[in-house]
Amino acid sequence: MYNCCQERVEEKINVMKKFGDTGNGGITRYTLSPADLELRQEFVKRMTAIGCKVVTDDFANMYAILQGAQPELPAIVMASHSDSVRNGGNYDGILGVIGAMEVLETVVKDKIPHMHNLIAMIWTNEEGSLYTPVMMSSGIICNDYLPDTVAKNFQEQQVLQSVSRLDPTQTFAMALENSNFKGKRGNRLSPQKGKAMFELHIEQGPILESAKKDIGVVDCVMGMASYRIQITGQSDHAGTTPMPFRQDALYGAAQAIIYLHTQLDTLDSNLVYTTGHITCHPNITTVIPDFVDFSLEMRHVDPTVIAEAVSIIKNMPTEFAKCQVSVEEAWARETVYFDKKLVANIQEATDQLGYSNQSIHSGAGHDAQFCAYMIPTAMIFVPSDGGHSHCELEHTSLKQCTQGINVLLNAVLSCDKEE
Amino acid sequence: MYNCCQERVEEKINVMKKFGDTGNGGITRYTLSPADLELRQEFVKRMTAIGCKVVTDDFANMYAILQGAQPELPAIVMASHSDSVRNGGNYDGILGVIGAMEVLETVVKDKIPHMHNLIAMIWTNEEGSLYTPVMMSSGIICNDYLPDTVAKNFQEQQVLQSVSRLDPTQTFAMALENSNFKGKRGNRLSPQKGKAMFELHIEQGPILESAKKDIGVVDCVMGMASYRIQITGQSDHAGTTPMPFRQDALYGAAQAIIYLHTQLDTLDSNLVYTTGHITCHPNITTVIPDFVDFSLEMRHVDPTVIAEAVSIIKNMPTEFAKCQVSVEEAWARETVYFDKKLVANIQEATDQLGYSNQSIHSGAGHDAQFCAYMIPTAMIFVPSDGGHSHCELEHTSLKQCTQGINVLLNAVLSCDKEE
Repeated sequence: MYNCCQERVEEKINVMKKFGDTGNGGITRYTLSPADLELRQEFVKRMTAIGCKVVTDDFANMYAILQGAQPELPAIVMASHSDSVRNGGNYDGILGVIGAMEVLETVVKDKIPHMHNLIAMIWTNEEGSLYTPVMMSSGIICNDYLPDTVAKNFQEQQVLQSVSRLDPTQTFAMALENSNFKGKRGNRLSPQKGKAMFELHIEQGPILESAKKDIGVVDCVMGMASYRIQITGQSDHAGTTPMPFRQDALYGAAQAIIYLHTQLDTLDSNLVYTTGHITCHPNITTVIPDFVDFSLEMRHVDPTVIAEAVSIIKNMPTEFAKCQVSVEEAWARETVYFDKKLVANIQEATDQLGYSNQSIHSGAGHDAQFCAYMIPTAMIFVPSDGGHSHCELEHTSLKQCTQGINVLLNAVLSCDKEE
Repeated sequence: MYNCCQERVEEKINVMKKFGDTGNGGITRYTLSPADLELRQEFVKRMTAIGCKVVTDDFANMYAILQGAQPELPAIVMASHSDSVRNGGNYDGILGVIGAMEVLETVVKDKIPHMHNLIAMIWTNEEGSLYTPVMMSSGIICNDYLPDTVAKNFQEQQVLQSVSRLDPTQTFAMALENSNFKGKRGNRLSPQKGKAMFELHIEQGPILESAKKDIGVVDCVMGMASYRIQITGQSDHAGTTPMPFRQDALYGAAQAIIYLHTQLDTLDSNLVYTTGHITCHPNITTVIPDFVDFSLEMRHVDPTVIAEAVSIIKNMPTEFAKCQVSVEEAWARETVYFDKKLVANIQEATDQLGYSNQSIHSGAGHDAQFCAYMIPTAMIFVPSDGGHSHCELEHTSLKQCTQGINVLLNAVLSCDKEE
């Protein structure tokens, strides 16, 4: 078995977390922001230094290509993303990029022979924190292979016009043009160019830690449905409207949230659901709210459980606190299973390295789930301390990060041996 | 009894509602916004045309002065505000300005003799929609006369640095400088310059309409307490964190809102309370919220009822949905009673005009409540259709508006007769 270098991994983690450092132990690194662009320059510098050729495609996805003995064969890709949520952590996404970089460095430094080109790749805008939708680039690049219901959310012209959440005068197309990383459309990953895609990622949940396992061998990304719940009341003056005359949309929304928790908690206990986003209009201390809109998304590996949850939402009361309730599907996706052969490569590498492990579903969405429709794809998880992610507490020990990269290295090298 | 001209009132209402017209029947006219500045120019044009001298003070409060037979006497002021909440109505504030303008026009056109100078005045930034705090200018101008607990919220240097809710690079001081209406500090209303202040306003509630009364003779502005409730949980990934591991601050906030409603509803039925403003962090669909902050304000004429409500808030559970609860007083004010003599002037004018009427408390805050600490002050209410206000539905019939102005005219003229 091959091993990467823990000291080099540590150094890479420490360098990468400077880009977008919040000063509170985490990062805010929106896609194509100055912090993200600096990180990408670092990526180019380091990959070029070990002999890679770096190219980008028209969505600024970056490919550091290490040539193999038979460069005419399709490449083996290791990819994740460099962007973060607001006040996110130092591992989500970037660990997969660091892992890919470290695998290439190990292969070069240890002169490990390989037939296929090996690629360390960065997907642009996985988080969708500044420009919607989430998993933007994989949705675009893999668009022709996605189910129609998913593909329709990634219409190229519409996505390019997506407007920055921070600056309404800025579109994603403008951010691309200004990035200096916009390359040729012809450089996009494709079934002809890619033999396989591996993504190393933190679990972002507490399952591996609770089970005291080092590695999660990911078999699928769980199905998911996302809804908007809208509560419409009547705005009136907070000081002059007696309580019985009110139609308070925020009070209605509070009742709706409690109702949904109570009902959804009766379903399978592995169902997860979240009301993460809320807007309130006019959102002024002295005005009774007339409109509240909140998100409800839920995930489960079994589509029948998702269907039960959807049924609860669609059949919820049409009125709370004298306010009207309406329900709208934002989007949904089915469970996506990863390539059995690549999953077996990962399982074998993990076992041979002697790491404790278990099979696991991904609750989070990843670029890998779109890529899986286009080329054989699989994922490796390492534990998240306390299960925390998408927050500054997010942490995975150096040892666990290194173990994950070792699994990635050996899985890639066994994949390389197969024609 | 004197009467104003209903046709002129109608014309003024129709002209004023063009400034900031939303196209949906209401207005958005933030203080010192282009729409507000145009309205002020219209005010200057019209008041100058009937022979008034118009001056402004250093907070851009505007004073159209109609000289009386004994201009050395302190003036009788009629005032309200020209700004609105977002998507507000065509009557809140501006009706009091229109009323003051129409009273002066009637006095001029009908050559009604008067000893004191009469002033039509506009208070700057009553709503605080763009720059906090609410009732900003009256808080500043009357500051020396306010109770310390209230006065501390209106420290001049701090208020001037208040930042626009729409544009973080813009302070209130900058808006004042750019308005062309910033005048001398020496022009401020003061006890030496003002004999009395009358404010005509819509009720903004359903009480007069329900009781079928034309006029509300306002005796006081109800006491009020305003709190922020903060719920702190833990941010984690929405797809990967099993439900039992979660500390969801929005779920906690929903429980807190329901709890507060349930408890506060056990108190006196005239208590009004509102959770009008909420923020949620990080407010992303795919992240479990770690922090929610919402406002709770309540009003009642009787301080013992307010004290009971405060006790419920301060003794609320310290945890909801495994999230920590903290409670912070934003501000509080005691019930402010209006000047008995001026209230009697209003009552007498209303009775002599033959309008149905009742004594009423103001649930809303008004500049009049701060002014009352400095000079004798009183208010007149006209009904609000359906009790609606701070929304585009806000409406008062032309007849009721005219009746209100007739009461203002005659109350001012009886006040004028008193030394």
